[in-house]
Amino acid sequence: MSLTQRRRERIEAVLADRLSSVVVVLEAVHRRHNASAILRSCECFGLHEVHLISGDFKPSKGAARGSERWLEIVQHTDTASCVASLKERGFSIFAADLAEKAETPDSVAVDGKVAILMGAELTGVSETARQLADGFICVPMRGMTESLNVSVASACIIARVAERRRAVVGGGDLDPSRLQAFLQAWEDREITAAEGMAARVGSQ
Amino acid sequence: MSLTQRRRERIEAVLADRLSSVVVVLEAVHRRHNASAILRSCECFGLHEVHLISGDFKPSKGAARGSERWLEIVQHTDTASCVASLKERGFSIFAADLAEKAETPDSVAVDGKVAILMGAELTGVSETARQLADGFICVPMRGMTESLNVSVASACIIARVAERRRAVVGGGDLDPSRLQAFLQAWEDREITAAEGMAARVGSQ
Repeated sequence: MSLTQRRRERIEAVLADRLSSVVVVLEAVHRRHNASAILRSCECFGLHEVHLISGDFKPSKGAARGSERWLEIVQHTDTASCVASLKERGFSIFAADLAEKAETPDSVAVDGKVAILMGAELTGVSETARQLADGFICVPMRGMTESLNVSVASACIIARVAERRRAVVGGGDLDPSRLQAFLQAWEDREITAAEGMAARVGSQ
Repeated sequence: MSLTQRRRERIEAVLADRLSSVVVVLEAVHRRHNASAILRSCECFGLHEVHLISGDFKPSKGAARGSERWLEIVQHTDTASCVASLKERGFSIFAADLAEKAETPDSVAVDGKVAILMGAELTGVSETARQLADGFICVPMRGMTESLNVSVASACIIARVAERRRAVVGGGDLDPSRLQAFLQAWEDREITAAEGMAARVGSQ
């Protein structure tokens, strides 16, 4: 069994546009619904990689809309090792925080790889993240309410930073070998799913 | 009884930064939670006016975070009259839609007043809105998932359009007489609330 030509072309086009030099780290988003909404935004904006620090996270199906299947999700047990591995790969870490010296999605430097680290809804990023981050980022707020929903704030940051980074790298920048490997995994999964469906229909 | 000087200064500063030349129209956002989240985003990004076309909407308290108290909310019974009144005031209407010729939050013209019209979650903007709109706007999406949550999509549009418009008008642009009237109403409400609280404490 094989994928239809049209489906394959669609997947190839999406992968060619994938941005791997902007990643998101979710440190401790306790509400599964919010974390899943953030995964969905990452995928919609064409990011490729999301790092989860809470080890046992399972996306909630409705909110993530299946976006987790189209992302490379990397699980970590703690903030320090996650940040270290990203720094080793050349990422600058910006923690989402209302810090005084916070950059905005408009001002943060996008001439290199950027990791956006989001903390928990109420308490924000951890002290470890605060100490290890290269800088801080927040969405400028101008109202009396002074708090955006965490999935809204992340989406505003991701959308803008990704668009600005795309302008620098000229579109997608996923390494060809990673692209091929991911494409193969996608195809295998889609074929397995189609075969499963065909088998179920055939047995009725 | 009067407001503390600090509170008053904070309210004055927020109002001085209010952007009245970008408004949001919610046509038929049926999930109260989503509509309330959009109100919250509007207030956080410093918009002043939101138009609601479903006549009987009441914000859900958690999601709106009280932001509805800091906005001028105008209720309408139908899309046509709402659009007509905004056009009469010089607004260009951009309907949020995945139309082929849709502008992006980066490309939409912000040299004049802009109204962003959001439709329902599943069916999008109404046919009436589609016909009456001056143009369409959507958030560029690059993934397989191809759908953003409506409150996330609106926030991404509002944040960017408002920031770009602010750069044109040089900050806030609320008419001084409206600003004074709104400030007075705010103050009256805060004093009434404080007096109510004082009376409750006094009677214990």
